[in-house]
Amino acid sequence: MNGHVTFVSSGPGDPDLLTVKAARILGQASVVLFDDLSAGAILDLVPKDAELVGVGKRAGRPSPKQDHINRLLLDYAGTGQQVVRLKSGDASVFGRLEEEIQALKDAGISYDIVPGVPAAMAAAAAAGIPLTRRALAKRVQFVTGHDALGTLPEDLNWTALADARTTTVVYMGKGTFPKLANALLERGLPPETPALLAENVSHSNQNIIRANVQQLADRLASEKGEGPAIILYGPLAEFD
Amino acid sequence: MNGHVTFVSSGPGDPDLLTVKAARILGQASVVLFDDLSAGAILDLVPKDAELVGVGKRAGRPSPKQDHINRLLLDYAGTGQQVVRLKSGDASVFGRLEEEIQALKDAGISYDIVPGVPAAMAAAAAAGIPLTRRALAKRVQFVTGHDALGTLPEDLNWTALADARTTTVVYMGKGTFPKLANALLERGLPPETPALLAENVSHSNQNIIRANVQQLADRLASEKGEGPAIILYGPLAEFD
Repeated sequence: MNGHVTFVSSGPGDPDLLTVKAARILGQASVVLFDDLSAGAILDLVPKDAELVGVGKRAGRPSPKQDHINRLLLDYAGTGQQVVRLKSGDASVFGRLEEEIQALKDAGISYDIVPGVPAAMAAAAAAGIPLTRRALAKRVQFVTGHDALGTLPEDLNWTALADARTTTVVYMGKGTFPKLANALLERGLPPETPALLAENVSHSNQNIIRANVQQLADRLASEKGEGPAIILYGPLAEFD
Repeated sequence: MNGHVTFVSSGPGDPDLLTVKAARILGQASVVLFDDLSAGAILDLVPKDAELVGVGKRAGRPSPKQDHINRLLLDYAGTGQQVVRLKSGDASVFGRLEEEIQALKDAGISYDIVPGVPAAMAAAAAAGIPLTRRALAKRVQFVTGHDALGTLPEDLNWTALADARTTTVVYMGKGTFPKLANALLERGLPPETPALLAENVSHSNQNIIRANVQQLADRLASEKGEGPAIILYGPLAEFD
């Protein structure tokens, strides 16, 4: 008998921002494999006798090998269990979902995906602004500031990213933002382009800082630590 | 006494994909202003004695003037009511949120935003694929295929959009995709780039078609109608 894996998107962390479907699945789960970023209050929804398996992914720390996570998924699903794989934000965005699905496919294990509130949308809502603007930002793009080695990816599309008429959302980019900003300014992005840092969105220690790209780069150059943070830059709306 | 407006993201349409918070707010609402796209089963959550006001936005049809929607918002909130403004997908994406917020700000009316599942993420989950890929798609971008006049916007960043190493999500682009595809192919996007059309995601008539950019453009050139559809193109994952 084959098991099944449901990839459940946790949203930004507040259980209130889970989907109704995700909350119901968690409330009935028997095994949950979770990332550190998707933990906290959300796990309180899981039945007391369920097995909770932390797989330890955490911003700014060395991640466990993806192979190890895949192995755990297969081990649990291979016993015929209905496994919940809880992933932070929306599961389809910068979460190594592909590798986990491929491992399941290779083993003949079925899966489904419950979409959720992406960190980008949670950050914009917390800041009270839209991600798109009818005349000024007809495009919105997400990029990761953090490759497998924890450094800024080198093969990014700089023309696309230095576009001042687009809202850009940088995931996991707090540590590398000074370097990213430098590359963008070299390619013509005005240093006074609005920027916003959103940390711990939807948690009690939520912190939102508005600045411009140059100011945010300067600030982050002298800051330690890499909590869960989203950076937006571009023609961000300001309301009087 | 001033009212208050809560912008509530409806997600793709299935009430199960509302957030817990959105479902609760709708269940307690006294006035709900909704777009056609966010209607259907979701409105069943609203108390029977609540006032439901359709503001009529619908893909492929002339929209009511945004001014008229702003006016309605102010009229309801101006009487001191707690108004729910239900917007399809995530409220911050291609939903004219900025104009509505600005109208509220101008009138001194407070607001907050409940983020939700964007149509792009719902489409990817329904298709069983991630939006990003570690090596092949480090960027994901959303663009609208439909400007205020219902035609393809002309001032798009073609270099960014013709990037075959990015997952691009086209909102409201079914009618204009042949024209968009033509422009992309002229700028070097390979015609065999994978593409996916997702219609009526999360509804009983959900329809997902996988093709490539050229094939999808050919198909849509001869098709009438403009239902709620999301188009993805780029190095979309395929699992064996």
